[in-house]
Amino acid sequence: MNVKAERISELTVNRLSVYLRCLDELSAQGVVTISSRSLAERFSLNSAQIRKDLAYFGEFGVRGLGYNIDDLRKHLTSILGLNAAHRVGVIGAGNLGTALANYEGFSGGSFAVVALFDSDPAKIGSQISGHIPIYDVADFARKATEISIDIAALAVPAHAANFALSTVVSAGIKAVLNFAPIRLNAPDGVKIKHVDLLVSLESLSYFLARSPLEAKAAFEA
Amino acid sequence: MNVKAERISELTVNRLSVYLRCLDELSAQGVVTISSRSLAERFSLNSAQIRKDLAYFGEFGVRGLGYNIDDLRKHLTSILGLNAAHRVGVIGAGNLGTALANYEGFSGGSFAVVALFDSDPAKIGSQISGHIPIYDVADFARKATEISIDIAALAVPAHAANFALSTVVSAGIKAVLNFAPIRLNAPDGVKIKHVDLLVSLESLSYFLARSPLEAKAAFEA
Repeated sequence: MNVKAERISELTVNRLSVYLRCLDELSAQGVVTISSRSLAERFSLNSAQIRKDLAYFGEFGVRGLGYNIDDLRKHLTSILGLNAAHRVGVIGAGNLGTALANYEGFSGGSFAVVALFDSDPAKIGSQISGHIPIYDVADFARKATEISIDIAALAVPAHAANFALSTVVSAGIKAVLNFAPIRLNAPDGVKIKHVDLLVSLESLSYFLARSPLEAKAAFEA
Repeated sequence: MNVKAERISELTVNRLSVYLRCLDELSAQGVVTISSRSLAERFSLNSAQIRKDLAYFGEFGVRGLGYNIDDLRKHLTSILGLNAAHRVGVIGAGNLGTALANYEGFSGGSFAVVALFDSDPAKIGSQISGHIPIYDVADFARKATEISIDIAALAVPAHAANFALSTVVSAGIKAVLNFAPIRLNAPDGVKIKHVDLLVSLESLSYFLARSPLEAKAAFEA
């Protein structure tokens, strides 16, 4: 079977993100090379899965020596499209939008919230953290072009989510991160990722509902 | 192969959450029964996967007739431990904590944010949305027992996350939803779910980095 001919699933892409985070941590610790087995052991991953996931994208690593961490980081950065920073526009300047604008997890530099958009006249014209502007959502298309937004995050109530989606899609945005608790249908050529807190919470609920022993086995799978 | 003897993976549990959400939607539309095939078609799921996932938990559905939607909802609700509402305590009453307290996605009733906890004297003693109290995080253990918190959400900066985790774990909390952009190690018997926005954003970045055709194939997998 030629793995390269298979389609790359979203789960594979998610795992590449996780590998990149692990390699960043190792690099910060001064580690230079690592085998798939050590990588798996240190971060509770699956070594066969690591080898298979990376094999989709070519030959990395040297048998017996493992992966050169900086090389592999560069490859993963390139595969994930992270060579240039993405510019994120957040629709909704409420608590969630503000939290996103301040999110420390973006400090790595691959993503930057460059503007928020709202319809509340009291918010329009002000700034978050002293430098991220809040614009009128009615100006989204013009501003998005002007400041090169390529990802939109929807931090609006459920009833406003479809309108927000159509606003960003008609402005040519192809990638959307949706926080509203509602199913949105992606138009052709547009990718939507849902941040669904209920799925995470229900997984915790399942864990709490099992006996300690059963839950332990379940989550080691 | 006896599938019931296998361990249930976290991915299976996540899919059960998704099925439950789909069944809720169908039930609201007045649909009474549905086959795995129709369910898969209506919600872009995989019918063989649905049958396999449900088979872990016993015999549901009647060959040729499909699943009775209300019966299956009851079963999934029970499997996921959602018969009684979970009481969520949020550590951190900043923008993210406030957004969680106001999150509409909890309106289904299985999860309720019952209190926030902070160390800022200016916030302690006030309320979110007029009814969710903010307590001193130093009182977490006592309050958690008093108001029966069983899930903790960590909405704190990365540098405060380990302290927040030890606070809730030493109070006997077994299920934690972590929003801080930092890897936390779960003590034995404690389940931590990470809400990692970078993984979602990097998946969007991967999509943007492919040619339109390639990305379409990738995400249909």
